[in-house]
Amino acid sequence: MTAVAIDAFVHDLATKSGEAILPFFRTAIGVEDKGGKRGRAFDPVTEADRAAEQVMRRMITAAFPEHGIIGEEFGLERPDARYVWALDPIDGTKSFISGMPAWGTLIGLLKDHKPVYGMMHQPFIGERFYGDGGSAHYQGPAGKRRLLVRDCEKLEDAILFTTSPLLMEAEERALFQGVEQHVRLSRYGGDCYSYCMVAAGLVDLVIETGLKDHDIVPLIPVIEGAGGIVTDWDGNAPLSGGRVVVAGSRAVHEQALKRLNP
Amino acid sequence: MTAVAIDAFVHDLATKSGEAILPFFRTAIGVEDKGGKRGRAFDPVTEADRAAEQVMRRMITAAFPEHGIIGEEFGLERPDARYVWALDPIDGTKSFISGMPAWGTLIGLLKDHKPVYGMMHQPFIGERFYGDGGSAHYQGPAGKRRLLVRDCEKLEDAILFTTSPLLMEAEERALFQGVEQHVRLSRYGGDCYSYCMVAAGLVDLVIETGLKDHDIVPLIPVIEGAGGIVTDWDGNAPLSGGRVVVAGSRAVHEQALKRLNP
Repeated sequence: MTAVAIDAFVHDLATKSGEAILPFFRTAIGVEDKGGKRGRAFDPVTEADRAAEQVMRRMITAAFPEHGIIGEEFGLERPDARYVWALDPIDGTKSFISGMPAWGTLIGLLKDHKPVYGMMHQPFIGERFYGDGGSAHYQGPAGKRRLLVRDCEKLEDAILFTTSPLLMEAEERALFQGVEQHVRLSRYGGDCYSYCMVAAGLVDLVIETGLKDHDIVPLIPVIEGAGGIVTDWDGNAPLSGGRVVVAGSRAVHEQALKRLNP
Repeated sequence: MTAVAIDAFVHDLATKSGEAILPFFRTAIGVEDKGGKRGRAFDPVTEADRAAEQVMRRMITAAFPEHGIIGEEFGLERPDARYVWALDPIDGTKSFISGMPAWGTLIGLLKDHKPVYGMMHQPFIGERFYGDGGSAHYQGPAGKRRLLVRDCEKLEDAILFTTSPLLMEAEERALFQGVEQHVRLSRYGGDCYSYCMVAAGLVDLVIETGLKDHDIVPLIPVIEGAGGIVTDWDGNAPLSGGRVVVAGSRAVHEQALKRLNP
């Protein structure tokens, strides 16, 4: 597979999965609520997740029948293949059900167990963040641009994101707060957007726990392509998810790791 | 002033302020960082805030020279006028500087100290939530629809948002957590979007503290127009900002107020 072929195919997966998802986003707006049951019988995020993953699985299987797939909704197919796709149709399901725009579709490709291409697509806003580990790019309402992390020397100057400290175990939360109390600004609620904003040079640090492989694998080539660093809390490649630390600069990454391992 | 004239004028204010803001959003993307100084000498959110407020003040003064203006950046003008505009060019400045899409421009109109029209405009996504207290509407990538709150009987079924518990005083945070521990889902990081999602029937409850008048006044006609309830923590109209409780249903509003005043 050439780099150009992968790039074109992933853009196509993004377009088609976005078309499958959008009819389920904010479906409740303008719908009269009969007896408080609106949105309870029917779960739009599950429907959207499944529809989008099915579309992408069909496209992958048709184009590359020998490739493996790791997906959030429908599990593993051919996990021992040389090329394996990692799919998370809706990363940020809680944002999605609340109507907030900070969710995205994650599409990643592993070759010999290494992430070689990744994309975050937000079909409602119409923007894409993608990379191959060597470089990373943005395409959306603001045009098409290269993604580059920013240099941040000190934790004290850093903008930190985490989706929610409520998602952490008590012990992890205490370690997280040991970093949080030293940063310039700490914000919650980013989901996949936080990582893309590190790649875009607007956020310096993301610390999370309890991730699945498909939550982080597709973002690694974007972050690394933009010059950022992705590890778990022990400093290793977080290919199976778990606890991650992502930084735009080596200095902030080191300072965060040190405080997470006191 | 007729309702139609107000509506058309506010849409025009939104369009023009959006054009003033967008050149400053995510300006750092794709810009090489020379020596770690990128974005430090120049503060894009302040520039955007000022540019947008100046555009709106000029338009209001030209069209309605007798109207008053309350603005975030340039203070009060003719506060005793019968009609007073409340402007917050960028609500969610921390989201804005982090490149996250959950910020918006708030435009409100008071007549005899009562909010009679309000809009939240997100120019990057291209969506508007607006209302006059009697009805409320949405216009954006998902088309044009009526905004209606959803009926939620119990706190235990509610989705709660607050921008960040870190913004609260310790005593307020403890009261907030007294509500938070009873809801179905608690999420952080919404800014003005949370209130619009109550109006859209996707979120049930927003609890915040330390708001300014221009943070909440423009949202009141949207929330009330969609059938929601807006008060301060004591149950009064929150026209000067402060601590607010916004709910889509009377039941959830009452249950939240009770726990905030134990």
